[in-house]
Formats: sequence, C-alpha cells, structure tokens
Amino acid sequence: MREQIQAHLDGLTKPPGSLGRLEELAARLCLVQRTLEPVTTPRKLVLFAADHGVVEEGISAWPSDVTGLMVANIHGGGAASSVLARSSATALELVDVGTESPAMPEAPGYLCAKVRAGSHNLAREPAVTAEEWRRALTLGGDRARAAAAEGAQVVAAGEMGIGNTTPASCLASLLADLPASAAVGRGAGSDDATVERKIEVVEAAVAAARPRLEADPPGAMAAVAGYEIVAMAGFFVTARELGLTVVLDGFIATAAALVAERLSPGTADAMIAAHRSVEPAHGRMLEVLGLRPMLDWDLRLGEGTGALLLMPLLDAAAALVKEMATFEGAGIRREV
Amino acid sequence: MREQIQAHLDGLTKPPGSLGRLEELAARLCLVQRTLEPVTTPRKLVLFAADHGVVEEGISAWPSDVTGLMVANIHGGGAASSVLARSSATALELVDVGTESPAMPEAPGYLCAKVRAGSHNLAREPAVTAEEWRRALTLGGDRARAAAAEGAQVVAAGEMGIGNTTPASCLASLLADLPASAAVGRGAGSDDATVERKIEVVEAAVAAARPRLEADPPGAMAAVAGYEIVAMAGFFVTARELGLTVVLDGFIATAAALVAERLSPGTADAMIAAHRSVEPAHGRMLEVLGLRPMLDWDLRLGEGTGALLLMPLLDAAAALVKEMATFEGAGIRREV
Repeated sequence: MREQIQAHLDGLTKPPGSLGRLEELAARLCLVQRTLEPVTTPRKLVLFAADHGVVEEGISAWPSDVTGLMVANIHGGGAASSVLARSSATALELVDVGTESPAMPEAPGYLCAKVRAGSHNLAREPAVTAEEWRRALTLGGDRARAAAAEGAQVVAAGEMGIGNTTPASCLASLLADLPASAAVGRGAGSDDATVERKIEVVEAAVAAARPRLEADPPGAMAAVAGYEIVAMAGFFVTARELGLTVVLDGFIATAAALVAERLSPGTADAMIAAHRSVEPAHGRMLEVLGLRPMLDWDLRLGEGTGALLLMPLLDAAAALVKEMATFEGAGIRREV
Repeated sequence: MREQIQAHLDGLTKPPGSLGRLEELAARLCLVQRTLEPVTTPRKLVLFAADHGVVEEGISAWPSDVTGLMVANIHGGGAASSVLARSSATALELVDVGTESPAMPEAPGYLCAKVRAGSHNLAREPAVTAEEWRRALTLGGDRARAAAAEGAQVVAAGEMGIGNTTPASCLASLLADLPASAAVGRGAGSDDATVERKIEVVEAAVAAARPRLEADPPGAMAAVAGYEIVAMAGFFVTARELGLTVVLDGFIATAAALVAERLSPGTADAMIAAHRSVEPAHGRMLEVLGLRPMLDWDLRLGEGTGALLLMPLLDAAAALVKEMATFEGAGIRREV
C-alpha cells in the first residue's frame, strides 16, 4: 500500500516530493484510510471536560472552577475550540465527564455524563477507581460510536480540565519512560515553584504506579489518570475499531493515545498527529506512538485546537491526491 | 497598534500566548490591515508564467516546453495550484507574461500578455531590457488593480517558469548579499553537476550586475531577472499601494518581493510570509524583508502553492480575533 501511494503521488504533475510535508500528510492519510480516494468530511471533535483532585496540591496556575466556566464558554461558542471548529467545518460535541461545576441545561452538542465531580487526588490515592475507569472508557467509546453513526469519517478528541497536564505528565512518564523532570512542562502558564511542585507530585505518583504496570496496566494507568483522559482513550480505541481516521491533538490527547495504544495495540495506526506542542515531553510521546507531528506552532491550549488547525490542511492533502492531473494524463514527459 | 493588538489577543479566553504561532499570525494580519476586524476573503492568486533564456546553459532539470504544458495543466484545473486554489476558496488568474509556448484560446481567468517568448539568456546578456522591464512591471501592477477592482482583500502572486530558480538565485545574491554558492539550491530537482553549473552562471551574472546596483537599481535587477519575477514585483508594489494584504509564497516570489522592496521601500509591510522553502537562501531573504515564515513544510514547487496552503490558517487566525470571547465577557478571572 505504501508503494502504491508513493507511486501515485510521484505521478502527479509536480517534481516528485516538491510539496514536501504536504505529500507526507497526503501519504499518511491514504495509508490510514487504505485508499487513494481519502475523505476528510464529515468530521467531528468530541471535547471531554473534567476536573482533577490533584489541583489541591497547587500544581496549576488556574483554579478548578475555570473548567466549568470554560465549558460554558465552549458551549456558548466563544472559546478557541468553538471558533476553530466553525472555521474548519468540524462538528463539536462537548461532554462533561466529571467537572466539579453544575450541569448546564440539556442542549444539542452538550452531554453531561459525570463519572464523579472531579477525580481523586493522585498525590494521595488512585485518581480513578476501577469502576470509574470502566465508566469513563465506555463513555468515550460510546461517543466515537455516536460520531460514526452520524456519518463522521474523521474525528478528533479534545479536552478541558484545569490541572490535567499533571496526570498527562504522569502518563508520559509511565508509558514513554521519561523521568518526571522531562515529563513535566509549564502547562497553561505555571511559574517555577509550581513546576517544581508538579515534578515532585508526578515523580511520587509514577513511582507508586509503575510496579503495577506489567501485572495490571489499567490499574497503574488509572492511578495517575483523569476522567477526560480515560474517556479520550476509549474514544480512540473505538474510533480505530470503527475505521475512523483520528486527528491527534496535543499533549493531553497524546497521553490518552498512549493509554489507548497500551490497551489496544495498533490504535495509533488510525492516527495523524496534528502538531507538536510546547510541552517538552510531547515530541517523545509521539515518537513512542510512531507519529510525526505536522505543525510546530508552539501551541499549548488543548481543547482540540491543534487538531482543528490541521483539518483544512488535511482537506488540501486529500484534494491533491484526488484532483491533481498525472504526468501521463497531462502529456508531460517526466525528466526527473 | 502593536500594543492594542497584543492586549486584544491577551484578553481572549485562553492562557496568554497559548495559541503560539497562530497568535503571531493573527497579530501580523491585524498589523498589516491595521484593524482588530481583519478580513481574509475574497482572495485571489495571480499566477505569472514565463520562460527563461538561461535554460540553454543547462541549469534546469526540465526543458522549457514544460512551462507551456504546465500552463495548460494549471488552466485545465489539474495542477497543484489549481487544486489548492479550489480547496482554499481562492480565485486563480493565470497570466502568460512571456512563455515560449503558443497562446491558449481566450478564456476567463487566463490572460496572454507576453512581453516576449522567453527572457534573454542572462549568462550572455541582460535577461530583461529596460523596455521589457517597464512592460512586465506595469502588467503586474495592472493585475493587482484588477484584483482589487473585483473586491479581493487578500492576494498572492505565484509563478510557473522552467529555469526561474536561476534568476531568483541571482536576485537573492544581489539583494540579500549572499555568495552564489549560498544563493543556489536544487530548484525543481537538479543534480550535482547542474547545481555546479548554476552556481557559476549566477556568480558571473551577479558580478556583472552588482556594480550598477547603486546607480541604476532597475537596470541591475533586470539584467538577472525574468518576466514573471518583474511582473510579481509590480504586482506587490501596487497591491500594497491599494491596501491589499499580500500572502507571500516561496523562493521565486520572495526574490520578486526583494525587487519590490527595493523599488518601493515598505512593500513588505503588506506581506505575510506563508512558508520557508527548501531553497537554502529563502530564510535569509525573508529575514532581509523582516518577515517570519509560518510553515516549514519543505515545499519547493512554486505556483503559489505555499501561499494557498496558508489561506485557511489565515481564516482561522482572523476568526479567533473576531469571534473569541474575552475573559471579561465570559466572567473568568485572569489568574496568569
């Protein structure tokens, strides 16, 4: 399949490889979909929101109630993800999988399905219990199934959750074999003291979880996870089983992808990595998944914004594959 | 204006700077248009095609008749630029400013306005005479005026011209003060011997032109230019005078931008650099213009393809500026 894709790209009316990474994106899209007629619409971003008990350790620059305020802002259409979803013609579903804020009124595109009002504090106890793990994982899978039922061909998962770079750093450390100091970054704007505290918390939590990883991978991962991360992992596993193409967002989404790949090896085969975030561990996590990020735009917002930015470039890549003339068709000799 | 733009971006509901280079793009767009309500449509790519006498020196991997075949392919909708123009909702006008191929039948979006059937061989004589320079420059300006008259707010110039990396390398050497060896790259697929020959040709032509640069800039630049490059320069100067926003494509377009900036200092203030091409001199040329490229995708095709790739990202940047909620509006305290 790889050779067939490359031969097709090289037969299009341009010097071979002259569209650089856009050709790489086109090739990846064709490979994921196993076709030379790739599709990029309809598409949907499912955005999972949750709070994190570990915020009480002082690891975040923002308080937990910002999660709920941002959920309302996303739902109201004023968040970056709302704007970029509209701009890229991507449907957006918002799922409260465990925020501490009250539910909003029912509305299309919003689902309140809290596992619990915020995860347990991973610095003191497992963040997610076995029962909560199953519920969050199932919920994520259900949202992928719902997206597929609506006809989505391309999906992405995004997240909102104050404090969620801490569980993501734990999972990066646990699953990409990074020391805590390399797995921890500044999140959404932490100062030096907060980063130091974050490293201590991650180091201790991962040291406690790591011995269980071989015997009980879900248990070890759950101990340092969060509800939106587990839901995203379930979303990815099911999306791949259903044959959907997954555009992978940034640091938190990639932590969830590592969980998904551990649960169901091969899940990353359905993925296209949208970007490399500012979080220092992100590049290594993508390497572990065998993915090469397309954009290097210093993003660190989350909410699926990186995945949304890539969507129109995915359209461009698909259009090239399907609409460009071939040298043969255009009657041009191939000199090179 | 810069401060006003930054304050607006920092007041949107996201950690300040968390959208990284997308915020940089948004800021640049606002600065170029001097507004917090930037527009990115309607937009138009004008694609100038010409042949180059210097091809007889063996500096290109492709023969000159490929220019005409590609012009027909672009017009027929099968070229990369045709596909990406459609995919990015950008109007495309194709202008034959001097190919060696016969004119195609008149049609909307195609203009045959040959200065001459191919430029003079810059290795033996000035590539563009003073009279030809004036005609090509005027033609480019007229196309910018036509685009503005149709309502275009954002424009780009692209090119098709077998051999045109050689005059572009000459102009890079002349105007960005680069030795020939640093100004010459592989173009659309040259081998080592061709690159060596290209360096010799560029070195000699620039050595002949450079002494005239201070006393007679147009004469010095014309000696090593080409019709599509001069037309693009005229296009840029007029586009800026008319208040249009210019999305700058790759290596050849940037050579034309250097010419435009020399003729009319400040032209680059209207520009947003879409990408940094594989051509080794391109980064330096953009620096001279004070521009920072957005994409680093190893493109080396030309035809305005890099500018077209940026268009939907420009839409995304504009949408953020205009549609995102502010912290104040969303009732969120700014902790950071």
